[in-house]
Amino acid sequence: MIYADYNGSAPPCLEVCEYLQKRLAPGAPFANPNAIHKLGKKIFLGMENARAVCAKNLGAKPFQLTLTSGATEAISIVMHSLIEQATSLQKKTIICSSIEHSAVHRSVQYYEEKYGFRVLWLPTLPSGVVDINMLETWLIAHHKDLAFVTVMAANNETGVIQPYREISEFCQRYNVPYFSDTTQIIAKDDFHFIDSGMDYAVLSSHKVGALIGSGLILSKNPENLRELIIGGGQEKYKRGGTQNYIGMETMAVALKAFQEKYKERLKDLKEERIQFEAQIKKMFPQVVILGEEAERLATTTYLSYPGIHGQAVQIELECQDIFVTTSSACSDNLPVTSKVLKSMNINDSIGRGVVRISVGACAPFGIYQHITEGLVKAYKKLIPINCPEQSQF
Amino acid sequence: MIYADYNGSAPPCLEVCEYLQKRLAPGAPFANPNAIHKLGKKIFLGMENARAVCAKNLGAKPFQLTLTSGATEAISIVMHSLIEQATSLQKKTIICSSIEHSAVHRSVQYYEEKYGFRVLWLPTLPSGVVDINMLETWLIAHHKDLAFVTVMAANNETGVIQPYREISEFCQRYNVPYFSDTTQIIAKDDFHFIDSGMDYAVLSSHKVGALIGSGLILSKNPENLRELIIGGGQEKYKRGGTQNYIGMETMAVALKAFQEKYKERLKDLKEERIQFEAQIKKMFPQVVILGEEAERLATTTYLSYPGIHGQAVQIELECQDIFVTTSSACSDNLPVTSKVLKSMNINDSIGRGVVRISVGACAPFGIYQHITEGLVKAYKKLIPINCPEQSQF
Repeated sequence: MIYADYNGSAPPCLEVCEYLQKRLAPGAPFANPNAIHKLGKKIFLGMENARAVCAKNLGAKPFQLTLTSGATEAISIVMHSLIEQATSLQKKTIICSSIEHSAVHRSVQYYEEKYGFRVLWLPTLPSGVVDINMLETWLIAHHKDLAFVTVMAANNETGVIQPYREISEFCQRYNVPYFSDTTQIIAKDDFHFIDSGMDYAVLSSHKVGALIGSGLILSKNPENLRELIIGGGQEKYKRGGTQNYIGMETMAVALKAFQEKYKERLKDLKEERIQFEAQIKKMFPQVVILGEEAERLATTTYLSYPGIHGQAVQIELECQDIFVTTSSACSDNLPVTSKVLKSMNINDSIGRGVVRISVGACAPFGIYQHITEGLVKAYKKLIPINCPEQSQF
Repeated sequence: MIYADYNGSAPPCLEVCEYLQKRLAPGAPFANPNAIHKLGKKIFLGMENARAVCAKNLGAKPFQLTLTSGATEAISIVMHSLIEQATSLQKKTIICSSIEHSAVHRSVQYYEEKYGFRVLWLPTLPSGVVDINMLETWLIAHHKDLAFVTVMAANNETGVIQPYREISEFCQRYNVPYFSDTTQIIAKDDFHFIDSGMDYAVLSSHKVGALIGSGLILSKNPENLRELIIGGGQEKYKRGGTQNYIGMETMAVALKAFQEKYKERLKDLKEERIQFEAQIKKMFPQVVILGEEAERLATTTYLSYPGIHGQAVQIELECQDIFVTTSSACSDNLPVTSKVLKSMNINDSIGRGVVRISVGACAPFGIYQHITEGLVKAYKKLIPINCPEQSQF
């Protein structure tokens, strides 16, 4: 089986599986981490140790990490906090990129519709990179009324890395909070929270090879967070509910494994990916690679054969035990050109043909060889049916 | 080791541990349950099957279950939904019991302070049961302005079971939504959601012997829920974020094990608990059992020796490898009489002496024998120091 949907969900890495086999055996330590007895204190200390390991591997301080149930919840908490702060400062404008994941996109729309915020949707260039010149123009023009800027670090569909360091600098210059959805960049590229200059970033456990069901908020100043889930004062009154300490522990295991073991493999994987893309384009010159000109994650290829529906390719690959998607898991049931591609000015013929191939740093070497063979076979079968005029096979 | 803090957190039951050993082994199925490929569909079907098993064992329909990260998040979503609905109907009064867990108590306070809701705090009788006559009086007087009523099903400190069926009937009569925090009753007593008549109930995985990090909302009409965590449309647009399918699966395993195996043990455990309490009271007539007169969970004893600080007892027990708490995990760092006991009109001398002993349906038989011996030893040591005038030892 070739699994190539890491951007949708990464398998728990080997280190996490091994950790959980011991960690969840009958009789293993458990307790409410907030209990006063020593079992509770032991769990609490283990959780705080895991927080420190996560922080170290994310370039942050332990106090800057707030445990959540995933990136979507983390995004909702950050948005709620930014909106509360903006409301108290009577700032009513948001700059949001037009290629955000629906968790960000729909949150911003919610505050637009419900509380009358004005949203400036930052377009992207055809490369898939946000228009940073327009961002600067808008910052100059509107910074006094700006609640926040939100631009993701790496796009979930194209894998295109956004200029988040420059965006941080701009935002700092104009004193506007910057939140970046970093879900797709962490454990797929170098990322150092403090160096990034962001005010807030987020992480999802199941995108980094940890156990599904937890996540983190990274905050420059976590005291600015506002409680969205109201509980018994856990996470310094920033996120209520008994902490998912097992989730925190597996994030520590996965992030440590990435830094110490898997990160160095990214260079080779990127090389493999480049060769794979070149080979496909050589055989099928019609193929378009979305975001090809931009800096991209080492592990993501978003390609299209105009005229062949992405879902047909996905099914052909599935018959060969190769698992990819057409766009993001959340939207790929809709047979329309995604908003990410529309923002890049991609026409529907290309838009309907896209297939997303995303692997991870702990994916087996040689994975692209299998994907190449599978994709060649799929196109060779589908071209004569869908584009007979192009058929040489 | 004797673990007697099930109300704080229950250990994963044996069935869940065994399930997870297989479920999380390297190579076991995983994927984003919303992905279009067959791996995703397989995970989705497994999750929906688990939802159906949970529903069956909770007396609900599968569509009535919304997956969350725990009871606290579930409570925040229900509260948000009830407040939004009430706001659109211009209803501004809330009836909330005075013995709620801080997740409910603090949520209600939040809407009181931030949005000007009026809160009527329903008192309890000295037995620990809410004053149902007063509730009816208030319903008659205020039902036209009532946003909702919230009274928990079983109290986390005393274990006292509240008359939730009568409360449901009252609320239905006056057409007021009833939300009950059922976190402590599920898997500790018979509970059937549809028969309960509640509009909303909640569950926490780590209170029922499942893996920590998930939970459920039970809704009579889930279409009335409002999205608090905004994501990609998961859980029918009621709760965003990739679903923690492993959490859902373990809840199904734990709830099924409770219904089929552990529930029948509750009668014997209750018998053991009654004997334990009688024995302690016979030896130490000063001991007060909180909520003694009321119907209580089979598995909870909240007792106090006036003059001996609960924390001293807890530490003495801990030295004997018996783990209990003084009140709830969230509040027991505060050396004050809890709001639950204040509501029962308990004086500080008793209030400061409380120790909560809570076991679970899957606790080993004979557990109360060990607890009795431990408690006798602890009191025999502490009485001469703290209450020398009472010392016969």
